[in-house]
This record gives sequence, C-alpha cells and structure tokens, in this order.
Amino acid sequence: MAVENREWYLACYAPHGVPNSDHLKLRTVSLSLEPHSIPDGHVAIETLLLSIDPYLRTTFTGPHNLDGLYFPQFQLNEVIRGVGIGRVKVSKDSKYKEGDIVLVFGDLPFAEYSVISSTNIFSKIDAASDGISLPDYLSCLGVPGFAAWVSIEVIGKAKEGSNVFISAASGGVGMIAGQLAKLRGCRVIGTTGSDQKVKLMKEEFGYDDGFNYNKEADFDAALSKYFPDGIDVYVDNVGGKMLEAVLNHVNKHARIPLCGMISQYNKVWTERDGVRNLLNMVGKEVRMEGFMIGSHFNRFDDFAKEMKKYIKEGKVKAKHKINIGIESVLDSLNSLFTSSNVGKVIIQFNAQ
Amino acid sequence: MAVENREWYLACYAPHGVPNSDHLKLRTVSLSLEPHSIPDGHVAIETLLLSIDPYLRTTFTGPHNLDGLYFPQFQLNEVIRGVGIGRVKVSKDSKYKEGDIVLVFGDLPFAEYSVISSTNIFSKIDAASDGISLPDYLSCLGVPGFAAWVSIEVIGKAKEGSNVFISAASGGVGMIAGQLAKLRGCRVIGTTGSDQKVKLMKEEFGYDDGFNYNKEADFDAALSKYFPDGIDVYVDNVGGKMLEAVLNHVNKHARIPLCGMISQYNKVWTERDGVRNLLNMVGKEVRMEGFMIGSHFNRFDDFAKEMKKYIKEGKVKAKHKINIGIESVLDSLNSLFTSSNVGKVIIQFNAQ
Repeated sequence: MAVENREWYLACYAPHGVPNSDHLKLRTVSLSLEPHSIPDGHVAIETLLLSIDPYLRTTFTGPHNLDGLYFPQFQLNEVIRGVGIGRVKVSKDSKYKEGDIVLVFGDLPFAEYSVISSTNIFSKIDAASDGISLPDYLSCLGVPGFAAWVSIEVIGKAKEGSNVFISAASGGVGMIAGQLAKLRGCRVIGTTGSDQKVKLMKEEFGYDDGFNYNKEADFDAALSKYFPDGIDVYVDNVGGKMLEAVLNHVNKHARIPLCGMISQYNKVWTERDGVRNLLNMVGKEVRMEGFMIGSHFNRFDDFAKEMKKYIKEGKVKAKHKINIGIESVLDSLNSLFTSSNVGKVIIQFNAQ
Repeated sequence: MAVENREWYLACYAPHGVPNSDHLKLRTVSLSLEPHSIPDGHVAIETLLLSIDPYLRTTFTGPHNLDGLYFPQFQLNEVIRGVGIGRVKVSKDSKYKEGDIVLVFGDLPFAEYSVISSTNIFSKIDAASDGISLPDYLSCLGVPGFAAWVSIEVIGKAKEGSNVFISAASGGVGMIAGQLAKLRGCRVIGTTGSDQKVKLMKEEFGYDDGFNYNKEADFDAALSKYFPDGIDVYVDNVGGKMLEAVLNHVNKHARIPLCGMISQYNKVWTERDGVRNLLNMVGKEVRMEGFMIGSHFNRFDDFAKEMKKYIKEGKVKAKHKINIGIESVLDSLNSLFTSSNVGKVIIQFNAQ
C-alpha cells in the first residue's frame, strides 16, 4: 500500500521575521507502507496530533545562525519535524504493534504518514485506561508542561509564599506554570496580550491577578502595583522589555528561569531590546538560567508522576487551541507570534 | 587620653559620576581612648590598613537609590566604613588585648582611630607566626580573594580544561581569580585596560593570554581569536559591552558569576549599556548569577584553608598598590575607575 502523503518542508531559510509560505511549503509525495519497505527497528506512523511550540520558529533560520537561535537547523527541502502523537500502522519492532498510540518528542515528521526509527518513540500512550486526553499529552504532559515544571520546580524553586510572575501567562508554558505555582502555595501574577486572556488566566488557571501588557505603557509601574513585595521567581517566556522591568523588582536571591524569549525570535540580535539593568542581579544576588528540556529528562518521571496525579484530580487543566488539518501548520505557528491564540496550539489531523 | 582623630565622612550624596571632594571630606575630631569611655564589649582600634574596594562606590548614592546599587547607604555626615586591619589600643572584651592585630570586614571606620563593638571583628591575625603579610589579608585572604574564590569555585565551577575568561583581570578580584583558575587546570584569558597590565597578568599571575580592551575595537572579534573553543566560565567584573560580547561566545552550560560591573556604577540605569543577546542564554543553557560575599560566609573557612596553603607555597600571589596616609582615601577610590591602578588598592596608615 502506498499513500499520497502530504508533508511540510523547508523551501527557503527564514533568518528573520515571521516565516511565511515562501519558507514553509506543503507538498504531496507517495509513501509506501508495505511491510517489506519498512526497515527493521522502524514503524510506519499515521499522525494524529502535532504540537506547535515556539521553539519551532528557531529551526528555520539556516546554517549561518549567529543570533542565538539554538536548535539544530532544518536543511533546505527537508521535512520539518517536531512533537506529536501518532498511531502505529506497521511495526518492524516487536515492542510496538499496529494500533498502538505513541508519543514522539522532537522527531515526528510534519506529515500525514511517516516511517521513523522506533528509538524516536518517547512512550506508548494508553489514554483509554489512564483517562488523560491525547491533547493533554502534548500540553500538561508534553513540551510546555515539562518546561513549566522545570521552570517552577527545578530552576525557579518556587515555594509556599513565593511571589511568582509569569509572562505569556496563558500560553502553552505559562498556563501550566501558573497552576503549578499556585499548587505550591505561591502568589502568582501573569501578563498576557489581551483582556480576554487576562480573564482566562484568572478564571481558568487560578492566577491571583494579572495584566494585559498591551494596555500598560509602563511595565515598571505595573510591576510596582502587582508586586508590592517584589518578585521571587520570574518565568520568562518573552525576554526584552518585560525582563528589564522585572529586574527592577526582583527580591534578594530571585530566580529567573529563561524558558524562551518569544518577543525576540524574529529579530537580528543587534536589533533586539537591550537589558540595561543587569547590575541589579549583583546586589540582589539573582540567578538567571536558560534551559532546554532535553537537559532535564532525568527528572521527567518525577514530573510525569506529579502531573498525572494533578490532571486526574482536576487540579491542573490545559486550554487547547486545536486547529484542524495538516494545512493549518503555517498559520498555527504564526499564531504564536501575534497574541491571537489562547493556550496550547495543537493540530488535529483529519484522519483522527 | 584623647587623640586628634582624622576621619572621612559623607558630606553630600553622589548619585552618579565619580565621587569627588564635595562628596567625601576629611575632618578632625577629638576621640577619647580612656578606658572608662570605651563601653563594655568594645575595643579602641588604631587603623593600620584599609582595603579600597569597588563596592564602596555604591554606598554613597543616597537613599533614593533606584539604580541597582545594592549596599546599605551611608547617611550624610556619617563616617564611612569598610574593610581594614587595626591594632587594639584599649580592650573592653576579654577576648582581645592591647596590641592584638585584628581584621574588620565592612565596619571599620575610615579613621585613624575608632571605637567599635568587638562583634565587628572578623578575626585576630597572627602574621608573625603564619608568615602571611598584612596586605595579603586584605587581598588574597580578603574581600577580593574571597570574591574570586566564590566566582571560580562556587558559582563558576571551573574544572580542569575549562575555558575561563576574566575581566578586570589584573584588578583585586581578577588577579586572584585567574590564579585560582590556573591552579584548577583551566585555560585562562584575561582582559584589562593597558598593555602594562596585560604583561603583568601573563608574567606575574600566570594567565595563558589576554588583551587590552582599550585597543580592541571589536570585542567579538577578540573573543573569537582568544576562545576558538568558546567560553565555559566568565568572571564578570565589568558588565556592559564586554558581557554582551561574551554571550556570543558561551559554550553549552556556561556559568557567569557576576562579581561586579564597574563599567556601569557611575551611570543612571537607563543610560547603562543594554545587553541585547540574552536569548543566547536559553539555547546555551547559561547560568548567570550575581552574588555578594556575605551570602557565602559559610564557605569562608574552606576558602581560607585553601588560600593560606597556596600563599605559603607561593602558588598565589597578589600585587598591591599601597597608598600612604588617610589623606589618600578619595584618590585611591577614584583610581579604581580610571584603569590607573594595578592590583589590590590598600591604604597604609602613617601610624604603622
């Protein structure tokens, strides 16, 4: 059996700016799913869901990447890959059988079907028995959930009574980070890009309060208002001017996990916002630390155990923005940069 | 017995710029050293040496300190205080007797004589028996030595083979940090403000190489040349443009202890150099951490044990710029900001 298989590939590097249809294109190729054409140790996968995460933006910049965008770069004409969930159609590995639902972290082709090494499978999912939805596996239990947990638990060391500030607070990472901080007894304030999302983060995710940064001319004044006792942990998803403002409000020994800097991704580094008050880090003895979840996988089981418990108890919930069909990849990616989406962006394939 | 006692006091706040004789003034007052006028638990001290450290600049800014200068501020008319060594003249504490040489960390008045609580004494010094000179107690074993050790050992975690970069490399902290890194088997490069000091750091302090930042138009290019394998540890004493350049050359999991930012102290924060490439910290998973030595005193004994051994073995040596007489306080302080001094600046009192 061969399928007409649609897949997204990199047609042209996008060194700066928001990638568009010149850079990422959809094409149709024929893919054989005959068992004899699947190598040993491989599986053929039918894609069910794809996770659309901000880091993806940083993989299209090309080889002359001098701007601190940090992931390995896709090559021209290469099919782009990421995190997703698929159903095994054909297995040449005895650990997997047809019909298994599998989670792939980072190396699932953005295609309707693919043949991948089974070593790329992160785990099998038994959604029927564990009662956790498939989209939750890409949000609470996926890249953004784990990034949120590393931010709050490992680097942020948020404790009862900590004053926690979260940017992109209703986004994939932010919404989980806020709930994890609340569950640790913190006072949690968020910032996001619309009044609707401010409402959401307070009503759905339990933030104590928050503000729409598009309506605040003076971030410094806003932080004075929301943090009369200063900031102990800042989960930074945006960088730039908000990070600078935060550094004027940090408490002694504050921790700043740098999860991402979405406000800065589309600019050449020399045009990015300079942070002028790093001196505050000396006197306040602040620790600022960038991280990639790959370096923390030794803690994944601790995370998953805690998170599954919270999901089942209804103590952590995710909002999903589910777009339908492989055609929606480019628009979904770009929605991350326009404040237009709420929650974790996921693509659901028509096949499902 | 009363003495005519000269002392430096804060006559006027110096919020920005280099403090001058409008801000710091010398006055003469009469001080009684009669035992009955010394309270119990106090000692009268004759000052022998004062340590002139960059942090002092940050204590004259005044109460409306919004610029991240972090130490408690002296009040108007208050005698300024710092780190120094004195000889006990009169003791009202049985732990000390006349003639004892004592080290005071942070609360020794900048005066020829003073009466202080004995709780402010950090330790007695027996220079005769331990063979360590008094100036070494203010350099290798003092504020800059301990700051260097915290930078290299505690925060920098420098290991054999680490690529270490040090700014203000021949200054009080830098000269010790470089030697400690070499003793750990690191490759150590420094930057400083004159060719003479570059020569000194290579010939006296054992740096592998280094450069005069005043002769490098392009810090980025200089770092490309000196760090073909990237930077693992950057001991930052200056901040600003050099820190930004370093962030373009950091290796995965690099550590940046922020020891001080002398290039930024005399500016309002909004006029400081913005660091535009903090995004590099995300992908490279860099940890940047400000510190004050006071938070690390639980490690002081480990430090002192290691350092005393190195001093006795001749493996760490300090260069001292010794200025004579209490009159030299203001010029000594300002010499820190003009690249004119080499090594640790100390004032030796005429009394000695």
